[in-house]
Amino acid sequence: MKKISILGSTGSIGANTLEVISRMAAEYVVIGLAAGSNIKLLREQVRRFNPKIVSLKTKTEADRLRSELSGLPVRVVHGPEGTEEVARFEENDIVVAAITGIDGLRPTLAAVESGVRVALANKESMVVAGAILRSRAASSGAEIIPVDSEHSGIFQCLAKEKSEDVRRAILTASGGPFFKTPLAELGRKTPEEALAHPRWKMGRKVTIDSATLLNKGLELIEARWLFGLGPSQLDILIHPQSIVHSLVEMKDGSTLAQLSVTDMRVPIQYALTYPERRTSDLSSLQLGRIRSLEFFEVEEERYPLIGLARKALETEKSLPVALNAANEVAVEAFLKRRIGFTDIAAVVGEILGKHRTSEADTLDAVLSVDRDTRAQTEKLLEQRH
Amino acid sequence: MKKISILGSTGSIGANTLEVISRMAAEYVVIGLAAGSNIKLLREQVRRFNPKIVSLKTKTEADRLRSELSGLPVRVVHGPEGTEEVARFEENDIVVAAITGIDGLRPTLAAVESGVRVALANKESMVVAGAILRSRAASSGAEIIPVDSEHSGIFQCLAKEKSEDVRRAILTASGGPFFKTPLAELGRKTPEEALAHPRWKMGRKVTIDSATLLNKGLELIEARWLFGLGPSQLDILIHPQSIVHSLVEMKDGSTLAQLSVTDMRVPIQYALTYPERRTSDLSSLQLGRIRSLEFFEVEEERYPLIGLARKALETEKSLPVALNAANEVAVEAFLKRRIGFTDIAAVVGEILGKHRTSEADTLDAVLSVDRDTRAQTEKLLEQRH
Repeated sequence: MKKISILGSTGSIGANTLEVISRMAAEYVVIGLAAGSNIKLLREQVRRFNPKIVSLKTKTEADRLRSELSGLPVRVVHGPEGTEEVARFEENDIVVAAITGIDGLRPTLAAVESGVRVALANKESMVVAGAILRSRAASSGAEIIPVDSEHSGIFQCLAKEKSEDVRRAILTASGGPFFKTPLAELGRKTPEEALAHPRWKMGRKVTIDSATLLNKGLELIEARWLFGLGPSQLDILIHPQSIVHSLVEMKDGSTLAQLSVTDMRVPIQYALTYPERRTSDLSSLQLGRIRSLEFFEVEEERYPLIGLARKALETEKSLPVALNAANEVAVEAFLKRRIGFTDIAAVVGEILGKHRTSEADTLDAVLSVDRDTRAQTEKLLEQRH
Repeated sequence: MKKISILGSTGSIGANTLEVISRMAAEYVVIGLAAGSNIKLLREQVRRFNPKIVSLKTKTEADRLRSELSGLPVRVVHGPEGTEEVARFEENDIVVAAITGIDGLRPTLAAVESGVRVALANKESMVVAGAILRSRAASSGAEIIPVDSEHSGIFQCLAKEKSEDVRRAILTASGGPFFKTPLAELGRKTPEEALAHPRWKMGRKVTIDSATLLNKGLELIEARWLFGLGPSQLDILIHPQSIVHSLVEMKDGSTLAQLSVTDMRVPIQYALTYPERRTSDLSSLQLGRIRSLEFFEVEEERYPLIGLARKALETEKSLPVALNAANEVAVEAFLKRRIGFTDIAAVVGEILGKHRTSEADTLDAVLSVDRDTRAQTEKLLEQRH
């Protein structure tokens, strides 16, 4: 019986993970859950899965949940320390790191340091602190298995391959809801339009990142650390059907690819069961019915954040941290209607243009760059008003 | 330095294999060549690659080549025994089995019995004697590595997977030149039209089998023996672009696929270098330029031989032998304009309808079913006149 904690259990990946676990209940059990402020959903999850430890954002929320669940043998903790306590819980065999954004960094690092398997859905950790995570995993013996469908695909394709034999790993992107929108109209797109993703049902931040394609830019940087590939070995293709998640072209001209129906439960389950596979009742891919899989080069004018992500990938050091921080602030401002859709890239570009690259090779340095960049971005947003 | 013999060196696979070897000359050397009657091309190959032993079809041809090459330290042999001598040549590390049709069976078996790596392009051996080849390989320690692009794809996808975890392996077929021809016009198609394959440049027999799709039917049976998959785990999809060679859907809903430019040198090289990969100068797959990959279910009315191949796959025993024999005779009759294109399936169907299934579990039994079926098919062809 494998014991699992989920960081970000009330989010989209968290909820899908619980569904996957409930279908493999003979082999996997939930031991810990960490959520934000969705106390209602967390309460349901606790009643259904009986974890030993759960965490919420604030003390008030934790107190409320504790009284609601009185009688159940569950320890309720709170705050960043609470999340880290779940991440380090001594009974964990697997930690699913599914908190979105920079907030996921400390708990992901805690899980990695405890030497367990980390099913990684928090791409920002790898983007801002890939080198740190890799070296801590090497010390602790933690296995980092990707949950992102694209990286799960690469991971599966690379099964017996060596990364030095890879000519190119290609991550596919749906292109988001504005793939065919005339460029001149992009500036007027509303949060509602940007949140209407054509293929994947995801959290709000990730959905906006899919519309700007920065999601794929962050994934390039994530892939660099997950698979030890260099910038020239990493590429993106637009694939509106989102059936082929990634392709790995080997140096002999042979390309391996991973495909599935558009359902996060496929890569989530694999991250838990690897190297085994478990029967799933998810529907088979019916290519004869889908008929056509299309691929397009990335139009950089439509997706200017990709150029910035490439620069961060090549420069490394503090630039990916700044990219991620400026983007998180800008996306939040777009969702709150403070700026327009095309302003996200403009703001991030302006911040990166001013950024003074530093080493960012410790957790403190990463968090300091993150904080500074957020403050600068906020300031820039205020100036624009 | 790996020493390679090629059975069928003057055919399409043979010539491509020599080209692959010439690009990896520091690691691979040609030691033996067996050809049919193309003495001119074999002479060039001998001068270029300096093998120690070569074989031709007849004594007359062998005598002629011997005198033309006098002075070169090459042993020239002939006939089926000569081919087998090349197959068993004691210095072989790898034998590329690339003789088309049932004629490839004995030499392929000889190579397998000698315990070397057999790069298998002669699918008919596996179709008619899969169980025999598998058991001889188990005794001798021979490795059988597929060269067919579809099977090479499955082999690569299965790298670290278990065959019991496979839900379905799908081989793709281009659909041949008549994929969109109105059914009523198929009967009038000439050998020239059938030989104009849209994607692959191959030998005549294989090209006709691609037009009838029986090539894919034989490959289903071949896959059954190469990978230990059952009939319900094997499927075919029409994919006119011939970029995706095969797909393997795992029981957890994840599908792995192998793709490459349409060039036999990709799978040939992999069969030689496996488990390593070597850099190749073959062009990269440019999916952004290809734009669309299409997939269609197989229309059984258009390709009636697929139904017969499925029956042979399910029945096993002597039925695949009879299928292959009747088809070889019928294809030859079509190429000689004795029968029309749709008569190929009609003739094969009639012969299989009359066939009395026997065990066919020894080489002699297989060859006897093969001989009898050929004679019956010839007789049927004569009666139709």
